[in-house]
Amino acid sequence: MKKILVLLWLASAISFAQSDDEKQLKKVYSESLLNGKSYAWLDHLSNKIGGRLSGSTNAAKAVQYTKAELEALGLDKVWLQEVMVPKWERGKPEEAFIVMGSKKVMVPICALGGSVATPEAGIEAEVIEVQNFEELKTLGKEKIQGKIVFYNRPMQADLISTFEAYGGCVNQRYAGAKEAIQYGAIGVVVRSMNLRLDDYPHTGSMSYGDIAVADRIPAAAISTKGADLLSKALKLNPNVKFKFSQHCKQYEDVLSHNVIGEITGSEFPNEIIIVGGHLDSWDLGDGSHDDGAGVVQSMEVLRLFKETGYKPKRTIRVVLFMNEENGLRGGRKYAEVAKTKGEKHIFALESDAGGFTPRGFSFDCSDGNFTQVESWRKLFKPYLIHYFEKGGSGADIGPLKDDQIVLAGLRPDSQRYFDHHHAENDTFDAVNKRELELGAATMTSLVYLFDKYGTVKEKKIKG
Amino acid sequence: MKKILVLLWLASAISFAQSDDEKQLKKVYSESLLNGKSYAWLDHLSNKIGGRLSGSTNAAKAVQYTKAELEALGLDKVWLQEVMVPKWERGKPEEAFIVMGSKKVMVPICALGGSVATPEAGIEAEVIEVQNFEELKTLGKEKIQGKIVFYNRPMQADLISTFEAYGGCVNQRYAGAKEAIQYGAIGVVVRSMNLRLDDYPHTGSMSYGDIAVADRIPAAAISTKGADLLSKALKLNPNVKFKFSQHCKQYEDVLSHNVIGEITGSEFPNEIIIVGGHLDSWDLGDGSHDDGAGVVQSMEVLRLFKETGYKPKRTIRVVLFMNEENGLRGGRKYAEVAKTKGEKHIFALESDAGGFTPRGFSFDCSDGNFTQVESWRKLFKPYLIHYFEKGGSGADIGPLKDDQIVLAGLRPDSQRYFDHHHAENDTFDAVNKRELELGAATMTSLVYLFDKYGTVKEKKIKG
Repeated sequence: MKKILVLLWLASAISFAQSDDEKQLKKVYSESLLNGKSYAWLDHLSNKIGGRLSGSTNAAKAVQYTKAELEALGLDKVWLQEVMVPKWERGKPEEAFIVMGSKKVMVPICALGGSVATPEAGIEAEVIEVQNFEELKTLGKEKIQGKIVFYNRPMQADLISTFEAYGGCVNQRYAGAKEAIQYGAIGVVVRSMNLRLDDYPHTGSMSYGDIAVADRIPAAAISTKGADLLSKALKLNPNVKFKFSQHCKQYEDVLSHNVIGEITGSEFPNEIIIVGGHLDSWDLGDGSHDDGAGVVQSMEVLRLFKETGYKPKRTIRVVLFMNEENGLRGGRKYAEVAKTKGEKHIFALESDAGGFTPRGFSFDCSDGNFTQVESWRKLFKPYLIHYFEKGGSGADIGPLKDDQIVLAGLRPDSQRYFDHHHAENDTFDAVNKRELELGAATMTSLVYLFDKYGTVKEKKIKG
Repeated sequence: MKKILVLLWLASAISFAQSDDEKQLKKVYSESLLNGKSYAWLDHLSNKIGGRLSGSTNAAKAVQYTKAELEALGLDKVWLQEVMVPKWERGKPEEAFIVMGSKKVMVPICALGGSVATPEAGIEAEVIEVQNFEELKTLGKEKIQGKIVFYNRPMQADLISTFEAYGGCVNQRYAGAKEAIQYGAIGVVVRSMNLRLDDYPHTGSMSYGDIAVADRIPAAAISTKGADLLSKALKLNPNVKFKFSQHCKQYEDVLSHNVIGEITGSEFPNEIIIVGGHLDSWDLGDGSHDDGAGVVQSMEVLRLFKETGYKPKRTIRVVLFMNEENGLRGGRKYAEVAKTKGEKHIFALESDAGGFTPRGFSFDCSDGNFTQVESWRKLFKPYLIHYFEKGGSGADIGPLKDDQIVLAGLRPDSQRYFDHHHAENDTFDAVNKRELELGAATMTSLVYLFDKYGTVKEKKIKG
């Protein structure tokens, strides 16, 4: 009988706790949708500042702006964390033409981030179209020497997750130049990572690996429509040439900052939870989806705690990382400093997949912690948050990984993300206010639950 | 032992069937995303034809176009079903001003569908702002007589479903004039049903009920920014006047058509499943989301069956309804003819909530049928379709309701829908190709399952 009473008590305690959680989530969503600040912050970052490539004046402005806004929230601490970042500039606009005898057709391109320039007048050469690195190898030096390699493998449209489709293509952009150099190519042009057919070239990071500076070749992205046109022209006449010029330049590293703010925990101040996005963006658009959205949503998490009167037990930090796009220096620096200081991070959440309607989260954590997350699933049902899966989390929080921490990434609807990703049309007008605000509320709700219930401690299994 | 063997056999049969279903869904999604026709059809409907208000030349063109496209699919039958529809025309553009003494500020308005015109020169009067009909009653004839009633209750932003927020406001638009007439108002202006602040007025249907034609007053929608401006002006000076002119006209009913195509069932041809959207739209935009999307998705269902080689056991019909927006004549006619012919409809699916990422369906059906639907839930998981709830289905299929039929509505993500609904910016560029195609595949998958497994027959309980 006593056992039954205890069970009944436990059940009622659980149901009572449940109801408190339901109430807190309701408050969070209502405050975000009725009085949210995320959209106004994003408006400023996007329209008053604009593209924020690492090392640029705009990136520095974004650091100062977000620091001031966090200070205005009345957090317990706000500070800048120094980090050296690469500085690369696009220079004057690129130009590119498909050259068919005496006829030239202009096509939209952009230099890939980190690429070297062409000579001032550009380069012109025959083109060899390939789908992948294997094809490159099969063709060999004989067929490739002196030519421009055109990587034209499209994103796979029948994958439901567009990030999966991106993952299946992005090696062309990241390592395309490095691979092509081995076969004597003099330049590289890559089909934009975009599922739509349009006129926007999409930039993104690339690497030459260990290849000496003198041996590097210029690499550009071409719009999807431009890629189709070039491919069609090559089918009609394999002797078609491609001419392009770009004027980008890599400078010495410069000093920049991560922006950090915290509400110190009332019960367990040494258990740290972070939520963040990256403050830098590519230079073509204004970086509204990538990752202005993640920045303002992360700031909003702390504001929503304060506005709803929730006092976290643990220390909640917002971290606005610098240099995710072309270096990850901010993410690495944050983890390095945390390690040096012996800080204990129990949960890290990143938003870097666009400001679209949130669908849920993916987790990088132990089974025990994932089971706890699944027990919270029903709390999210009224908000149509349904996706709780194991998988990746985020690039900037990755360096914090150990065998205890829970890492998570917000997973918004991914269908439109690559329409805008790294392109001139990643702009404020492409972000819907409600979708952005729902994302902020969803993140706040998960952080609240991890703050309240903590993580499940894993026992280390001795080998 | 025999029982166990039978159970094992059953389990393996079920798991085999499961796997067939998984394969069919995969084929359907892949075909829709890789070779779908829905987007090209929508391009034509939106950009080559445009807004398709009942009784207009465009509506007639849309009938001919979709009939021809369905014929090109090689269905077993394609036909037009005659239906008389109302014909209302907007006439030349509306004009409206907030009049503050000698200063006039122009604001965007549009006539509500079915409204009477103002005199040619417009009407000008003092304004009384109200939130609801109760307030109107409290104010009474004394305060309202001779004035323009301004309904300014906004959509509730903290509701997750924007359709719920719409439901909480739309009586102002639909019955606002009828109510205001009782207190001697001379005109009505209604805040647009839009969660964003922008410059687009949103039209929509309204009714005068039994009020005689001579006693009717003109009713217009004002953009959300215009509504805020008017409200602010009235707070500063209650004597501010509003002046507006509109030139709309109601004509005699005209002949129009529902467009119907079918694949006749191979096993149970007399069990009919329909899938549909409405072919008419409002006149301001091109009706891409409302409901060009539903039209082309419904057509795509039959195309996907043919392309994937699936031969339905039951008769599958696509029905493109005429006049959902301002009369529902097409929906009523279809049900009336079905009843006259003694046709047995077992399942009807409607898509009329925009061409956004599909999240699931809502059902109007018996518990037994809903249980069967829930057993299919896991089949949809790879496609991130998670919403299966009881609730409304759709306006056009509503008249088919009886105690046996399953009615369902596609439920896309609703966050952006009312940014475009019934406004000039409901246009093709606001529809994302992949989101539209995912919706078509999701609809096809559900129709496939109902075709294959049928519905659960309900026993009539004797009273």
